[in-house]
Amino acid sequence: MKVYKKALLPLEFQSNGITCGIKKSAKLDLALFYSRLPAKAACKFTTNKLPAAPIILDKINLKEGKRFQAVIVNSGNANCFTGRHGLSDAWSTAAALAGALRLNKKSILVSSTGIIGRRLPLAKIKKAIPQLAAGLSRLGIDKAKRAIMTTDTFVKEISVRFNIGSRTVTLCGVAKGAGMIAPDMATMLAFILTDADISQGALNKALKICLDNSFNCITVDGCMSTNDSLILLANGASRNSRITRERYFSPFVKALNTVCRELAKMIVADAEGASKFIKITVRGGISFTQAKRVALAVANSSLFKTAMFGENPNFGRIVAAVGASGVRVSEKDLKIRVSPLHKREINVEIGLAQGRFDCTVYTSDLSPEYVKINAGYN
Amino acid sequence: MKVYKKALLPLEFQSNGITCGIKKSAKLDLALFYSRLPAKAACKFTTNKLPAAPIILDKINLKEGKRFQAVIVNSGNANCFTGRHGLSDAWSTAAALAGALRLNKKSILVSSTGIIGRRLPLAKIKKAIPQLAAGLSRLGIDKAKRAIMTTDTFVKEISVRFNIGSRTVTLCGVAKGAGMIAPDMATMLAFILTDADISQGALNKALKICLDNSFNCITVDGCMSTNDSLILLANGASRNSRITRERYFSPFVKALNTVCRELAKMIVADAEGASKFIKITVRGGISFTQAKRVALAVANSSLFKTAMFGENPNFGRIVAAVGASGVRVSEKDLKIRVSPLHKREINVEIGLAQGRFDCTVYTSDLSPEYVKINAGYN
Repeated sequence: MKVYKKALLPLEFQSNGITCGIKKSAKLDLALFYSRLPAKAACKFTTNKLPAAPIILDKINLKEGKRFQAVIVNSGNANCFTGRHGLSDAWSTAAALAGALRLNKKSILVSSTGIIGRRLPLAKIKKAIPQLAAGLSRLGIDKAKRAIMTTDTFVKEISVRFNIGSRTVTLCGVAKGAGMIAPDMATMLAFILTDADISQGALNKALKICLDNSFNCITVDGCMSTNDSLILLANGASRNSRITRERYFSPFVKALNTVCRELAKMIVADAEGASKFIKITVRGGISFTQAKRVALAVANSSLFKTAMFGENPNFGRIVAAVGASGVRVSEKDLKIRVSPLHKREINVEIGLAQGRFDCTVYTSDLSPEYVKINAGYN
Repeated sequence: MKVYKKALLPLEFQSNGITCGIKKSAKLDLALFYSRLPAKAACKFTTNKLPAAPIILDKINLKEGKRFQAVIVNSGNANCFTGRHGLSDAWSTAAALAGALRLNKKSILVSSTGIIGRRLPLAKIKKAIPQLAAGLSRLGIDKAKRAIMTTDTFVKEISVRFNIGSRTVTLCGVAKGAGMIAPDMATMLAFILTDADISQGALNKALKICLDNSFNCITVDGCMSTNDSLILLANGASRNSRITRERYFSPFVKALNTVCRELAKMIVADAEGASKFIKITVRGGISFTQAKRVALAVANSSLFKTAMFGENPNFGRIVAAVGASGVRVSEKDLKIRVSPLHKREINVEIGLAQGRFDCTVYTSDLSPEYVKINAGYN
């Protein structure tokens, strides 16, 4: 398996990114990911009970359709809490793109990120779609990966290649961060494209496995967005021997896991206002879920996070957070070790000595800068 | 019912506070609350799974004993995560006080607040106890209420009086804040003393009712301490007709509720680094629990709290927090109203339009000052 720190489109994918005028800054704000072949999809969306309209649309399409060819993404407006207009605006976006690409609108997925509670500027988007579609190209990924960004300070991209027989399978992932979340923009979006030929069951299962070790193991401020989405498309263009849950599954999971985990770590590293990248490993849990609960309780503790910012070797706050997790722990068995705090990367190890399950989560510190950025006067 | 913004000891109670040398600052750090008559107790402790040693001791005494005469409290050291020494140090403290006051040590309750993971300076405490006991007086409450403080910037005290027939019943409450929590000190302690004659069942029930409207409805940073304790003693000295769940219960609950709620509000108002006092009312829940879950989700959202600090009228963050609470909500029924943000006191009203239950919680904003204080370089 080879890892590239750059987005390299798999076979038969094209992409583009343009400025349609949603963002006041005139930055790129409309992205398109397109597969010339119908692709299978596996997706994961926020569990927020007030999901944005594009997520509602995607869930309908995923339930009804089996193959997908395009994902259109706007940044600058979340199309969330937009009442009855929200879903119809999302459908109109999909319909306009379907017209431009001569696709069934059911084969299109939609994502949005940005301000909540303001209606999507549909006229601008519809006007821009012909240009967006016409400009599709193999190199367009370099614009698309920027057009999905909001307050990210760097592009989050990665590609992985591995062989199945004589065929090379490529996975390409791009993401935008929910890092420390800027005013009104609180979303993690990730798009992963692959030319692997893989059964639907194997695709779903692989994503589920990888999420638990990546996007589900990062936290910045414990706030769950209304728009969080991960969309994985597999178009089979590599013409490899088909991956199933029985055959070639493990190398595919390994590749997908690398893509998901590296994107997730980049999101944490780009957390707004963060001065530390913190890895918290809980060992000796009676289950993965239990270990993760402890790890997330520490990772989401404001007291722990401020202590990390202040390089304050305060293990009492870790003890309090472990106890507050609700997990039964024994004081005498609990072991806590923290690496030197003056470095940017900090490792926290928590031993429960109860079982054989471990969990690692990634988080950032809590700095005055985070508060300033999110107070909205930066 | 009369309310006094000062701690006025009920009949047959005495108190004292001294400096025994736990705090480096030479401030008062050892407090004693004493009843000349054996008193009934009702208590509530943290649900943190790594509770401090004094809480373990208190639970043992409360299980075995029925009457209590003294509560000894130290500030500056939490006696938590102190291994096998923790509980024996707490017992030694109780035993030393039992000797000085000629009480059974089972009739003594112990509280600690301060740094976690460091052994209690037992020699200092034992040496100071004779002086602490000898100095007990009616006015000693003015020292005791200061001796329980850590980073509090003002004393939290209140008294309430009401009549049952010709008898006056007094309730007196003092507390220390978990406000925004300073380095190593993360505890809310409250001591409520009353001369009411009340059945044990009524006392327990009244406390349970009042907690739900007070200490269980405040949150500063969502961090649950290892030492949180509320201790309520009732010594019957007022010789009123006994309060039971059937008789005089309602005026007693009203008085206790006032004491608990005002102390809880003072704790939020004194939250470290806070510039806003925020009242969040959720209306129209299908249950109190559901309404409270929504209210706490908003109150604990770092994004919401920073927006309040920045006076940023960002209702999208409230929407996201409501959705993230896990409660099923309908976008079209959800109503959000926020009072003008330039004032120190802010009211947030969230209407769910699902049922008839309301819940109000109190919280503070999240300021850069909070981070600085808790990073440990103030």
